[in-house]
Amino acid sequence: MAVNLHIPAAADIHAVAGVRIGVAEAGIRKAGRRDLVVFDLAGGTTVAGVFTLNRFRAAPVQLCEKHLARGQAIRALVINTGNANAGTGEPGLAAAQATCDALAAELGAAPTEILPFSTGVILEPLPVDRLVAALPRALADLRGDNWLNAAHGIMTTDTLPKVVSRRVAIGGHAITITGISKGAGMIRPNMATMLGFLATDAGIAQPLLDTLVRELADHSFNRITVDGDTSTNDSFIVMASGQSGLSVQTAADAGYAELRAALIEVSRELAQKIVRDAEGATKFMTLAVEGAVNTREALQVAYAVAHSPLVKTAFYASDPNLGRILAAIGYAGIADLDVAGVDLWLDDVHVATAGGRHPDYREEDGQRVMRQAEITVRIALGRGSAAETVYTCDFSHEYVSINADYRS
Amino acid sequence: MAVNLHIPAAADIHAVAGVRIGVAEAGIRKAGRRDLVVFDLAGGTTVAGVFTLNRFRAAPVQLCEKHLARGQAIRALVINTGNANAGTGEPGLAAAQATCDALAAELGAAPTEILPFSTGVILEPLPVDRLVAALPRALADLRGDNWLNAAHGIMTTDTLPKVVSRRVAIGGHAITITGISKGAGMIRPNMATMLGFLATDAGIAQPLLDTLVRELADHSFNRITVDGDTSTNDSFIVMASGQSGLSVQTAADAGYAELRAALIEVSRELAQKIVRDAEGATKFMTLAVEGAVNTREALQVAYAVAHSPLVKTAFYASDPNLGRILAAIGYAGIADLDVAGVDLWLDDVHVATAGGRHPDYREEDGQRVMRQAEITVRIALGRGSAAETVYTCDFSHEYVSINADYRS
Repeated sequence: MAVNLHIPAAADIHAVAGVRIGVAEAGIRKAGRRDLVVFDLAGGTTVAGVFTLNRFRAAPVQLCEKHLARGQAIRALVINTGNANAGTGEPGLAAAQATCDALAAELGAAPTEILPFSTGVILEPLPVDRLVAALPRALADLRGDNWLNAAHGIMTTDTLPKVVSRRVAIGGHAITITGISKGAGMIRPNMATMLGFLATDAGIAQPLLDTLVRELADHSFNRITVDGDTSTNDSFIVMASGQSGLSVQTAADAGYAELRAALIEVSRELAQKIVRDAEGATKFMTLAVEGAVNTREALQVAYAVAHSPLVKTAFYASDPNLGRILAAIGYAGIADLDVAGVDLWLDDVHVATAGGRHPDYREEDGQRVMRQAEITVRIALGRGSAAETVYTCDFSHEYVSINADYRS
Repeated sequence: MAVNLHIPAAADIHAVAGVRIGVAEAGIRKAGRRDLVVFDLAGGTTVAGVFTLNRFRAAPVQLCEKHLARGQAIRALVINTGNANAGTGEPGLAAAQATCDALAAELGAAPTEILPFSTGVILEPLPVDRLVAALPRALADLRGDNWLNAAHGIMTTDTLPKVVSRRVAIGGHAITITGISKGAGMIRPNMATMLGFLATDAGIAQPLLDTLVRELADHSFNRITVDGDTSTNDSFIVMASGQSGLSVQTAADAGYAELRAALIEVSRELAQKIVRDAEGATKFMTLAVEGAVNTREALQVAYAVAHSPLVKTAFYASDPNLGRILAAIGYAGIADLDVAGVDLWLDDVHVATAGGRHPDYREEDGQRVMRQAEITVRIALGRGSAAETVYTCDFSHEYVSINADYRS
C-alpha cells in the first residue's frame, strides 16, 4: 500500500567509493531471508550518528554511542533485523558486545571500531550465536553495489526497500551520495529514525560531520511521524569516505553549502520514503505550520495534528471532516492561542478562518483534495514568523491488522 | 462491542428531587431520534462545571463559562447532539445565544440562567431553528424519572447509554446521586469530558461545589483517554438541589467526606463507562503508575502508554508484545529515567525488571492476562512515591471503521 514510493533502477543506485556492503542469512527470527548486513569502510572514512532519545534505548545503540564518543576511526557496521535487542538489560549489552567482538576478530580490528545495530521485536533475547555464525558469509559477500540488497536486508514491516542515490558535481569533483532507510511503524524519531544509513565519497572532517549529522536529522528523520511511537533503536549514520577527492574541513569551505544541500535532499527523501511505506498508509500528508512564535510551537501544532487518530482516520476515509484538525490545533498546548487568528488550507482550498469555516469554503472542494494520495495541510497561526513542516500518513484498517499480527 | 458496560434496571435509576428532565426530537442531524435534552432545576439548586481546555472550545462552552462565572442561580440546561457548534466562529456564538434566549423565554427566566451544551460534528453550522422549535416538546416531557432517556438523548457514536445511580445514607439523610455521561471518541478530557451530568439532592454551598467539581473531574473524567483527542466540547456539570435535607457549607461539615467519596465513586464510574463504550473497544485497561517523583510525571508515563497505537493494537490482538510498553515508558519524556529501576506487571504477572525481561516471566503467563477483557498494567518507576491511575481501551479495526464513516 506504499504511497508513490519508487525503487530506483539498479543503474541509478551508485556505489560509494570506500564503502562495501555484505548481506547474509542469519536466521535471526525467520528462515529464508537475508537479515544480516555488514558495511565495511575504507581507511580515512569519517562516521557520525544520532540516536534515539528513548530512555529504553537498545543495547546496540548504547554501544554505538560509546564507540563513536571515542572519536576514533570506525571500521565496520553490522545490522540485524528480526530482533531489536532492546529491553534486554545486561544480557542484551553482552550480546551486542559479542557481536562487535566477533566482527572485529574477523576483520583484525578492535571491537570499539565496530558499530552494531538491531531492529525488530523488543524484550526478547538476541540469538547472538546465529548472528555471529553468519558473519563470515556476510563478509564473503562484500561489494560496492550491494545497496539494494542491504535495503532489503534491514526491512521489518516495510513493504518495499528504501534507497536514494544521487550524483552531484561540486568544485570539479563528481560526488556520490547513496543511502538506505527502513521503518514503517514505531516511527516518531526523536533524534533520528531506525534506521538510516547515508554514505558519500566526499570527505568531511569529523567535527564538521558531527554537527552536520544533527542538521541532516532535523531536516529529515526528525520531521516524520507514523504513530507517535519513538523507537528504542532509532539510528541515523552518515559516512564520508573522501575518495572522490573533495574534502571539506569547515562549514566555510568551498563546496560545503552545495554538499550540505545535496545531503539534506537525500536525507529528506529517505525519511519521506519511510512515511510513504508506513504501516497501512494510503495517503502521504505534508503538515506545514507557519506564523508560529517559534520552532517548538510550530512543531507542537504539526505533531498534534499528525498524531490525532481522528484526523488520520478522516484522511484514510477521504472524508473532509476538517473540524478534527481544528480540535487538534486547539489542544496542541498553546495556552494563549487566539483561534480567531488561525487559518487552515487543504492544498489550495481555504477551509477555516476567524475561528470558523471560511465563507467561500465548499465541501466539494475539500472532498476533491481529500481524495488525492498526497495532501498538504497548511496551518497559519497568525502569531509570529516561525514555520516547520512535518510529514505523516493516514491511519487505516491495515495499520491495525499489521500491528495486531506483527509477532505472529 | 462495549466492555462490561451495564445499564441499570429502571428501578435502580433514582430520580433526584429538584431535577426534572425532558427529551424531544429536534432533527438536528438525523431524523427519528430524540436528540434534545432539557434539565429543569428547582430553586436553591447549586451548579458548578468544568470545561475543555481546547483553545477551539465550542460556542456553548464559552456561554456556559460566562453564565457560571456570574455566580448566580442556574435554572436549566439544554443539550443537543448531532452538531458540536464548535469551530463555528461568531455565527456559532449567536446560535448558542439564541438557544439560551428561547429556553429562557419559555421558562420566564433570564438567558444567563441557562447553560447550553452541544455534541457532534465540528465546523458545521448549528441548525438552531430546528432546535428552538423542539424546546416546547422537551418541556412538555419534563419529569424526574427521565434519566435513561436523557442518557440516550446525548449519545453520538456511543453504543449504549451511560447512567450511574446511588443511594447513600449520610447523617440520617437518604441521599441520591444520579448522573449520565456520553462520549466514545475524541476522548482525552482536559478538565472534563463531553458530556457528564451529575445531580444530587444533597445541598452543597456554591463555593464548596466550585472546588468539588474540579476534584471530582480529577478523580474521574480527567483520568480517561480513548484516542488522545481532547474535544472542543468537554463539559462536566454537578448539580446539588438540597432537597434531601442534608446541606453542607464547608469541607469540614459533618457528612461532607462521605458525600464527596460517594460523588467520586459515581463520577469515576460514569467516566469508566465512556472507556467501556469507547469506539471499537474490546478491552478495558487500567494503567497504574507508581514510584513517580510527582503526579505530573506519573500521568506523563500513563498517558504515553495509553496513547501508543502500538500498545493499543497489541492489546486488541491479545498479543503480549510487551516491549512496546517499555518503549512508551522510555519516550514519555522523563529525561533522567533510569530504566534499571523500572518494573512492569500485567495484573499479577511480573514482566520486566532491571531494564529487561523478568527472569521468571513466561510468555504463556502474559498471554493468559492479555486474553482477559479487563487488564491492569502496573508500572513502578522506582523514583518516588507519587502514583496515578488512568483508564483506557484497546485500538481495533472497528475504531478505524467508525471514524472513517462518522459523518456518512
